[in-house]
Amino acid sequence: MAPKVRPAKRVEGQRKDVWSIINEAAAAADKEVINLGQGFFGYNPPSFILNAAKDALDRVDCNQYSPTAGRPRLREALSASYSPFFGRKINPATEIVVTSGANEGMLSAFMGFIEPGDEVILMEPYFDQYISNIEMAGGKIVYVSLHPPEKGDTQVCSADEWKLDLGELEAAFTEKTRMIVINSPHNPIGKIFSRDELKAIGDLCVKHNTIILSDEVYDRLYYKPFTRIATLSPEIEDLTITVGSAGKNFYCTGWRVGWLIGKEHLIKYAGAAHTRICFSSVSPLQEATAIGFELADTHNFWTLSKREMQRKMTLFNSIWHELSLPYTEPDGGYFVLVNLSSIRIPDDYEFPPHVLERPRDFKLAWFLIRELGVAAIPPTEFYTERNQREAENYLRFAVCKEDEVLEKAKERLRGLRMFMV
Amino acid sequence: MAPKVRPAKRVEGQRKDVWSIINEAAAAADKEVINLGQGFFGYNPPSFILNAAKDALDRVDCNQYSPTAGRPRLREALSASYSPFFGRKINPATEIVVTSGANEGMLSAFMGFIEPGDEVILMEPYFDQYISNIEMAGGKIVYVSLHPPEKGDTQVCSADEWKLDLGELEAAFTEKTRMIVINSPHNPIGKIFSRDELKAIGDLCVKHNTIILSDEVYDRLYYKPFTRIATLSPEIEDLTITVGSAGKNFYCTGWRVGWLIGKEHLIKYAGAAHTRICFSSVSPLQEATAIGFELADTHNFWTLSKREMQRKMTLFNSIWHELSLPYTEPDGGYFVLVNLSSIRIPDDYEFPPHVLERPRDFKLAWFLIRELGVAAIPPTEFYTERNQREAENYLRFAVCKEDEVLEKAKERLRGLRMFMV
Repeated sequence: MAPKVRPAKRVEGQRKDVWSIINEAAAAADKEVINLGQGFFGYNPPSFILNAAKDALDRVDCNQYSPTAGRPRLREALSASYSPFFGRKINPATEIVVTSGANEGMLSAFMGFIEPGDEVILMEPYFDQYISNIEMAGGKIVYVSLHPPEKGDTQVCSADEWKLDLGELEAAFTEKTRMIVINSPHNPIGKIFSRDELKAIGDLCVKHNTIILSDEVYDRLYYKPFTRIATLSPEIEDLTITVGSAGKNFYCTGWRVGWLIGKEHLIKYAGAAHTRICFSSVSPLQEATAIGFELADTHNFWTLSKREMQRKMTLFNSIWHELSLPYTEPDGGYFVLVNLSSIRIPDDYEFPPHVLERPRDFKLAWFLIRELGVAAIPPTEFYTERNQREAENYLRFAVCKEDEVLEKAKERLRGLRMFMV
Repeated sequence: MAPKVRPAKRVEGQRKDVWSIINEAAAAADKEVINLGQGFFGYNPPSFILNAAKDALDRVDCNQYSPTAGRPRLREALSASYSPFFGRKINPATEIVVTSGANEGMLSAFMGFIEPGDEVILMEPYFDQYISNIEMAGGKIVYVSLHPPEKGDTQVCSADEWKLDLGELEAAFTEKTRMIVINSPHNPIGKIFSRDELKAIGDLCVKHNTIILSDEVYDRLYYKPFTRIATLSPEIEDLTITVGSAGKNFYCTGWRVGWLIGKEHLIKYAGAAHTRICFSSVSPLQEATAIGFELADTHNFWTLSKREMQRKMTLFNSIWHELSLPYTEPDGGYFVLVNLSSIRIPDDYEFPPHVLERPRDFKLAWFLIRELGVAAIPPTEFYTERNQREAENYLRFAVCKEDEVLEKAKERLRGLRMFMV
């Protein structure tokens, strides 16, 4: 008989996460499922960065510990690449810390500043890992909505039409508010916050002395002008930590190389937390990422990668026009939210208990996997129960896949016609 | 003027860590310093694992997210390699979790089981990262000593002669004790806990229902019989999480691939914490590590790597015999503790304030860097203030370096003669 070991509250009693539900459903299906669920790339990083990684593996120093703040060459390369965007020279020694993926970077920021009981403002829908990262630091989450467009059930909308109510945001600030998380380009909506929206948010944060954690991991994939909140005023910049990701930038989500950029008085403490969490990050792939940034412009990589993703987005979304299903046209990133309110699931369709208890989008996702062999993510996973009705007719599809996979998915999705009211 | 952002208590006001002090001293020296301080390898991993890593970089799935618990191939390879040591089949699906280095693995274990106020027993000297990892989870540390041999100032001793007093250990258990950390082979002592010592510790843990976190990252480098505490009784195994490291096993401390092995009721929660901390770990290097384990026996790697390290240890330690300086003969790992009580630092020697305020071993380390150009680690960094006198005459040297580096270090260390009383 096993001993009575009780887990810490921070890890006990979590319900099954969306990735497990979708992956298990896909594994249990009787045909091979096309996975447009999780946002991993269906193709390799560019050869200039792969070759750099292979070369790094031959160097003794690239296989051993890197400095906890990151390899100097990578911090230099990030400074060179990002300083023009920020309109000032970013100090590679004090204003950048390299982390084990953007995820651990965000955890480091929360661990660096959040005490038990402090409040963090999040917008719904949110990336689900934010929640456990904030709770790990003892923070309390206060939610504000990005309201979906009312016509979303019937018409194609712009990501712009998912709206933050500034009055609601202002009401969310309290004495205990310590941080806010912004995500632009936004997952899953594809929204790029406008300059005006960001300025209004930033000014509220200055007023309330609130640290802004700006998750900009999709920062190279924008299809309309993209503003970084840190650039809007010196006072806002003094409060902003910007998050970046080699995985999203260079198609290598499994490399676990991310970074935080911000003023020294912020990076110092996020970096101290990072050292205590992971000590240091993966050396050979840090070196390869450094070389990737050094060579990207030579290969015109940023322009080409953006153009390529936008092409894939258009290629894939043509299926929704064909089916007359409304979706949200993304302004950035590689996800598209599709509204399936007109899909009728047969009344007697059987779902396993852990799907039955979840909102309609989980049932839609299950149904698509089983009936059509296409996996997508139910976005109410990114909502609190209070607001999940807003997204229960949507599914999120990732288009960062090979063209032939997207075409095959479209062919299968044509089967939706049979279930449309 | 920067805004008043206060850091979380868990990261504020830490004094300068030993790695920074030693690295900065080395950088400021007027000749190139031979670094036998930090335990990174001075040579590359074996080519069979480097080639595996390069091949992995060509595979799409190896560049994208791995399952949060680790790549199936690596968990299979770990199960195949470790099951014989544990005398039972380790279930790769439920009893292993792959982490971002052993360090994040240990943090995951603490985060999985420690609530604020819970107590964790540590032995002094300890690996310094344990402290911040336990504090991050809100744990309170209770220390017991590994007492150095009394004759250590004058005679070569065996690592065995650093003794745990079982009465002191038993007295350290309270109602709040939740975990104990054991490290065997031990850093920095090189001690391998005997079967009897481990059984006594394990039985106390069973009596007090205390989880054993057994840090066995140097598990392939033992120069006398090595026992894993998990194998000593089913009751002990039910409480034991064993920590391993690809970095230590395959000479790649910068790869950040580690793992935890234990019964499902333990791994489940440590794994849940890991998912919340780092989400998943580095994919191509997980794959390479899997292949490393698959191929290690074919290359007779485990035998050769142990023999090679023992040879380096003997090669290097001959200098202490030559100088008649006593040291602790390690039974495992790649560190050696040398007793420098007979070294006289000139009375008027100048130290910077952050060295002056620390015990004598910090001054010895500073002095060796400046006068001889050899860096070593002052072990009182691994002690609380209460007990640091026990180690203030020792320095820790790492021998996992190229032979020519060890020879050059020996040549420089001959200069110690000038300062011996």
